[in-house]
Amino acid sequence: MSGAFSFGILSIDPGSAARRGRITTPHGTIETPAFMPVGTAGTVKGMTPEDLESLGFEIVLGNTYHLALRPGEEVVRRLGGLHRFMGWERAILTDSGGFQVLSLADLRTITDEGVSFRSHLDGSLLSMTPERSMQIQTSLGSDIVMAFDDCPALPSPRPRILEAVRRTSLWARRSREALLGPGQALFGIVQGGDDPALREQSAEEITALGFDGYAIGGVSVGESADLSRAVVALTAPRLPPDRPRYLMGMGTPADLVEMVALGCDLFDCVLPTRNARNGTLFTSTGRLSIKRSEFAADPRPVDGECSCPVCRRFSRAYLRHLYVAGEILSMRLNTLHNLHQYADLMRRARAAIEAGRYAEFLSERRARWTDRRREAETARPADGRQDCGGGDRMI
Amino acid sequence: MSGAFSFGILSIDPGSAARRGRITTPHGTIETPAFMPVGTAGTVKGMTPEDLESLGFEIVLGNTYHLALRPGEEVVRRLGGLHRFMGWERAILTDSGGFQVLSLADLRTITDEGVSFRSHLDGSLLSMTPERSMQIQTSLGSDIVMAFDDCPALPSPRPRILEAVRRTSLWARRSREALLGPGQALFGIVQGGDDPALREQSAEEITALGFDGYAIGGVSVGESADLSRAVVALTAPRLPPDRPRYLMGMGTPADLVEMVALGCDLFDCVLPTRNARNGTLFTSTGRLSIKRSEFAADPRPVDGECSCPVCRRFSRAYLRHLYVAGEILSMRLNTLHNLHQYADLMRRARAAIEAGRYAEFLSERRARWTDRRREAETARPADGRQDCGGGDRMI
Repeated sequence: MSGAFSFGILSIDPGSAARRGRITTPHGTIETPAFMPVGTAGTVKGMTPEDLESLGFEIVLGNTYHLALRPGEEVVRRLGGLHRFMGWERAILTDSGGFQVLSLADLRTITDEGVSFRSHLDGSLLSMTPERSMQIQTSLGSDIVMAFDDCPALPSPRPRILEAVRRTSLWARRSREALLGPGQALFGIVQGGDDPALREQSAEEITALGFDGYAIGGVSVGESADLSRAVVALTAPRLPPDRPRYLMGMGTPADLVEMVALGCDLFDCVLPTRNARNGTLFTSTGRLSIKRSEFAADPRPVDGECSCPVCRRFSRAYLRHLYVAGEILSMRLNTLHNLHQYADLMRRARAAIEAGRYAEFLSERRARWTDRRREAETARPADGRQDCGGGDRMI
Repeated sequence: MSGAFSFGILSIDPGSAARRGRITTPHGTIETPAFMPVGTAGTVKGMTPEDLESLGFEIVLGNTYHLALRPGEEVVRRLGGLHRFMGWERAILTDSGGFQVLSLADLRTITDEGVSFRSHLDGSLLSMTPERSMQIQTSLGSDIVMAFDDCPALPSPRPRILEAVRRTSLWARRSREALLGPGQALFGIVQGGDDPALREQSAEEITALGFDGYAIGGVSVGESADLSRAVVALTAPRLPPDRPRYLMGMGTPADLVEMVALGCDLFDCVLPTRNARNGTLFTSTGRLSIKRSEFAADPRPVDGECSCPVCRRFSRAYLRHLYVAGEILSMRLNTLHNLHQYADLMRRARAAIEAGRYAEFLSERRARWTDRRREAETARPADGRQDCGGGDRMI
C-alpha cells in the first residue's frame, strides 16, 4: 500500500495542453499520460500479470459488468478482491458497468432508477443502478471506481443525449453518496454526445459534484475519429486542471498522441489487444496485417524500430505461420507486441512533455502516420460501442 | 554449438534398469531421463521459448508432417532452420512424419516405396518416403532425426504387424543411407506391435543397422496401458545399453516413472499440453478437472506441493473462472502448470537414480497414484494414435 489517492502535475508542455503527471493509489503510482490495457474478465487476454509488469504498465482496467456476471463480485470479494484474484499487484480502474449494460445486454429498459437488462451470458434478468455499481466496485476493491453513467451511442437524437446528460448527473450524485472501500477513489463521467452545449452543461454539473478525477465518456461510440477528437477538444478544457482526466475507450496510437496534446492523462481501448488477436499489428509507421502472404518467408521483425520481446526474437514469417495455423502463441505474441507499442508510445509522450517538446513530438508523429491515417480511420468499426470502447470480449 | 551428438551414462540405479545419462547435441546437452514437450507446428501450444527454458526443458519435439505441410520445410530452411524459426536455441528432435501420415491424412496408400496421402489441411495429394522424410528433417535442421517407420495401430492382425516390421527395417536402411546435415544424429525405430517375437525381430534388425539412438515405436496406439508397458518391458532390454532409448508418444506421469525403471531415457506425449487446454491438471497426487463447480470459490492453489509459477500466484477459483470464461490465459496457465509437473517429475527421477534409490522412488509414486490409477487408465483415449502419440493439433 503506497497511500491514498492523489494526483500531481510534474510538468506542463509549453506548446500544447499536454501535462506530465503522477497518480498515487493504494497499489502504486501511475506515471501519466498512461494507457490502461483492458482486462475485461479479470485478465488482459493472453497476458500474465508478469507480462504486463514487464511491459511497464502500472494500471489495468477491469469490467464491472463482466465480473459481476461471471464469476460474480461476491466470489472475487471472498477471494480478497480483484487484485488478488487476478494476481495483479498494481493499480486497477473498474468501469461502472453502464456502458456494457447498454451495449451488450440483450434487452434493456433504462429509467431514472437504473437499467434492467438480460445477461448476455444466460438471459437472466438483472438490474444495474448507481448503488449496485458502487457495491460491485467496492467488492472488487479497485483503486479507481467509475460513477455510473448513461452513455448513448452516436448518432443519437438530441432529446436522447439531453436525457443522458440529466441522468448522468443524477446517477453521479447517487454514486457520490455511496460508501466505498478504504482508499478507493471515485471518478465522475461527463456525457453530452456531440453537442457542445450539452458537453458544457454536463462538465459543469459533474465537476460541481467534486470527484477525485474526471472522465470524458460517450466518445468512440459510433462517431468518426474527427468528431471524437472535436468532442474531447471542447470537453477537456472544462475539467479541473488539478485532477486527472480519463478519456474512455479511445483509441488508435494517432488518437492517443492527439488527445495527450489536449490535456488527457489516462486512456483505455481494446484496439491493441483485439487487433492483435485478429492479426493486425501496430508499428512505428502504421499497421501491418501479419496474415498477408507476402510475409510467408519474410525474415524481418514486425518493426525494425521496436524493442519488444517479439521483435527481438521472431520473424514476420514465423508470426504469419502461427496466425495461419491458428496457434494460441499467435495471439499471445501479437498482443505482447501491440501492448508494447502502446506502452512505448506513452513513454515517449511523457519524455517529450518533460523535455518541453510535446508539440514537436506530435508533429513528428502526425507526419509518420499521415500515409496510414486513412487506413486507420476506415478500420474503425461502424459500431464503436461494441468494438472499441467496450470490454475485450472475444477470446 | 556444443559439439557433435554423444551419449554418456552417469549412473545406473542398483534396484532397477533406470539410468541417469547425458545427451550432447549441437544445441546443448540433455540430462536424461528427460521429457520432450510436443511442438507440433513449430510451437509448444501457448508457450514461448523462454517459458520452456524457465521450466527447465532442454529439448522439444517438432512434427515433420505438420511443418512440411505448413509452412513447408523450404520456408523454414530459408529462414535458418527450425531452431531459428521458432526462436528455440536448445535441442530439437523431429519425428519422421510416418506416424502422422498414417493417423491424420485423409486417404493413404502404403507401399514399400512409401506412403501416398492427401493433406488433412487442403486435400492435396502428397507422398512421404524415407528419402523425403530425411530431406525434410535436414531442411528443418533438427538435432535428432527419426528414421521413417511404418507404425500400425493396435489391435492389428499379425500379418499387418509383420509387414510393418519388414517395411520399418527396409525404410530404416534407406533412412540410414540418406545424407543428413552436419551434426544431425539419426535414431532408428523398433516396431512389432504387441507380438514379442516380432518386437525381438525388429529390435535385432534395427540395432544391426547401427543408429545414434533407438526408439520404441508403436506403443500408445490404441492398446491398454498395461499392454504398452509390457511391450516396453520386453523391447527396452533388447536395445544397446550405450545408446539413448526414446519411448515414443507415451504417456501419463505414472507411465513415465514406470518406463524410466525399464531403462528408457527420452519421452514425449501430448497429454500435459492437450489436457491443459481441456482443463485437466496433473498434480502430485493425481488429476484435477479445473472446470468443476466445487472450485468456484476455492482459494487454494491447484497443488499445494507444486512450485510452478501458476501455483505460486493463482487460486483454483481464478483458474476455473478463466476456463469457464474461455479465456486464452486459461490454456497458457494450465499448460505451464502441467509442463512444470512433467519437468519436475523427471528432475526427481534423475535425482533418485543418482542417489541409487529409484526403486523406492517408484514404489512411493505407485502408492501415491494408486487411487487415481483407474481414473488415469479410463481417461486414456480409445484411439491412442490421434490422442496421445500424435502431434498436438487442437488449438
